[in-house]
Amino acid sequence: MAPVQECFISAPGKCILHGEHAVVHGKVALAVSLNLRTYLRLQVTSTAEVSISLPNIDTFLSWDVSVLKPLLSHCKGECRSSTELDTELVRKLREFTAIADGSTDTRSMAVLAFLYTYLCVFAHSEWSEQELELINNWAFQGEKIIHGNPSGVDNAVGTWGGFLRYHAGKITPLSRVPTLRILLTNTKKYHAVPNSSFPKVKDRINQYPSVMAPVLESVDAVSQICERTLAEMATEGASAKHYSTLEDLIDINQHHLNVMGVSHTSLNTLCQVTLTHGLHSKLTGAGGGGCAITLLTPETGESVVRGVVEELKQVGFDCWEAVSAPGVLMHSPTSLTHSVLDILTKY
Amino acid sequence: MAPVQECFISAPGKCILHGEHAVVHGKVALAVSLNLRTYLRLQVTSTAEVSISLPNIDTFLSWDVSVLKPLLSHCKGECRSSTELDTELVRKLREFTAIADGSTDTRSMAVLAFLYTYLCVFAHSEWSEQELELINNWAFQGEKIIHGNPSGVDNAVGTWGGFLRYHAGKITPLSRVPTLRILLTNTKKYHAVPNSSFPKVKDRINQYPSVMAPVLESVDAVSQICERTLAEMATEGASAKHYSTLEDLIDINQHHLNVMGVSHTSLNTLCQVTLTHGLHSKLTGAGGGGCAITLLTPETGESVVRGVVEELKQVGFDCWEAVSAPGVLMHSPTSLTHSVLDILTKY
Repeated sequence: MAPVQECFISAPGKCILHGEHAVVHGKVALAVSLNLRTYLRLQVTSTAEVSISLPNIDTFLSWDVSVLKPLLSHCKGECRSSTELDTELVRKLREFTAIADGSTDTRSMAVLAFLYTYLCVFAHSEWSEQELELINNWAFQGEKIIHGNPSGVDNAVGTWGGFLRYHAGKITPLSRVPTLRILLTNTKKYHAVPNSSFPKVKDRINQYPSVMAPVLESVDAVSQICERTLAEMATEGASAKHYSTLEDLIDINQHHLNVMGVSHTSLNTLCQVTLTHGLHSKLTGAGGGGCAITLLTPETGESVVRGVVEELKQVGFDCWEAVSAPGVLMHSPTSLTHSVLDILTKY
Repeated sequence: MAPVQECFISAPGKCILHGEHAVVHGKVALAVSLNLRTYLRLQVTSTAEVSISLPNIDTFLSWDVSVLKPLLSHCKGECRSSTELDTELVRKLREFTAIADGSTDTRSMAVLAFLYTYLCVFAHSEWSEQELELINNWAFQGEKIIHGNPSGVDNAVGTWGGFLRYHAGKITPLSRVPTLRILLTNTKKYHAVPNSSFPKVKDRINQYPSVMAPVLESVDAVSQICERTLAEMATEGASAKHYSTLEDLIDINQHHLNVMGVSHTSLNTLCQVTLTHGLHSKLTGAGGGGCAITLLTPETGESVVRGVVEELKQVGFDCWEAVSAPGVLMHSPTSLTHSVLDILTKY
């Protein structure tokens, strides 16, 4: 019997370094991929079934391919481009999976995004040479389903990895960058649904345009100084002064995000806790709760990190230590750590 | 025997509503006088002695007039204007009182400022009609002695009272303004000497000009919206929406002051404590510790104020409830409260 064909793929975690919210208003944003990877094991089966096992969110589902294929019937092929979301297919998939229009829980969104991507990739008979472009575009469609109005930064940084600059719809990788150590913390607290913070920022800008326009300007400058500093660190070697600048920028931006109204008491608590250990933090992404990043420097000893993490866990937060990392990767099974391989082959 | 001649004078307390630090960089600032008055009892004595009793700071001193007069010998009169500080006289007074050049403690500064003002006012043989201008200018000289590089807002708001607008060296009283209830809190904490925060803001502006220039712009806009809102409250009547705007502006400015690097953990703690009671606070003045203002609205019940004050006192802060108030006043003894009169006539 021939061995079951399989492959291992991973994509990095990511965080927004600077520019969340401001990016929506034409300002520069910086994103970086982290070595907190999501691994995927693709396995050819002998049955006519498509199965997904997402143990993290306790989701294990199977469908017969013959049931899935007709869902593409409305489309002659041309509508299944990789840059435009096929909303008719999304509608059909919601009907098929009985996921109601308003429901945005993690499992429903994961299943919808998976089925959409599976069906459209499946419908494509050929792959272009620009596989990363394709992966990025498919990931973007997933983002559209899950997020609604994505900037495109998240899928891009997951695909290409490293540091990305985002400005006025254009995503550019930074060519010369250092490796950053980052403590990623999930406060698990939210004002409301994370995406609902977007209209709030717009409201505040409309309410106080003369106050908010300069704040966005300042965030733009923060992103640009950060970009310059990262380039200097890569070319000249990282110095304490560089890290001090990165820390200043983090503090400044966190206050700006507070002014935009997208912080949360839990995030401000986090900033205070890390500051008592000499570390600087800011929210990352949509805000209104959720995740924060804390910059770790070469001077940050392991005992300091342990102390901070312990204190943050006591408040009820989850922490992961991470470094900036490459984008989507194909792995040989032997290159994976045992713990990752164990989980991937368990289901 | 003829009764001893005496008079009672008072000047209001004050706080900076918006624009501290930004004012030094050409932006608008707003100040308001508060009914936390400092009272002065001036009494003619039958001896040739000048005495000051400052019970608050435990300072009781007397000098023979014949010892003081020679201190003015270096000056032919023209140098004792009320707009320029006579630095030679300050030097002589430091020598005379044995107050060292570097010492800036409250008692030394109070004694220096008193002697300077006493001697110069004494040297003036006539009063102009513009007594307030004179008082303001003398107060400004005192500020120069105590503070070093004063903006002129503090003496002006103490002299004229009410709300003052300060921009590019020009001080304008706001004509139509509401009465604001303010909780003034002294954290009694400092990073260092308060005045040392000034070069720090300048340093930060020099270090990150593209980040900081828009922040100053934004503070300017905050002051201007505050001014417009106060005018609207006076003309249209104060609404909940007006107070909500004033609260937003306070929050925004406190974050901007954090970005300028002039806040302090004690001030951020204060903001958090008052926010848990639904009240909004910002540092006022130089920052780096020191005082904060908390806006009380018509909706703020006495039990809420009591609760906040209790909690702030537990952290070790001092609190005073105040309202915006008139400037320097001359009182008849019968118009003073018993408690004020008791203290003034005790020494």
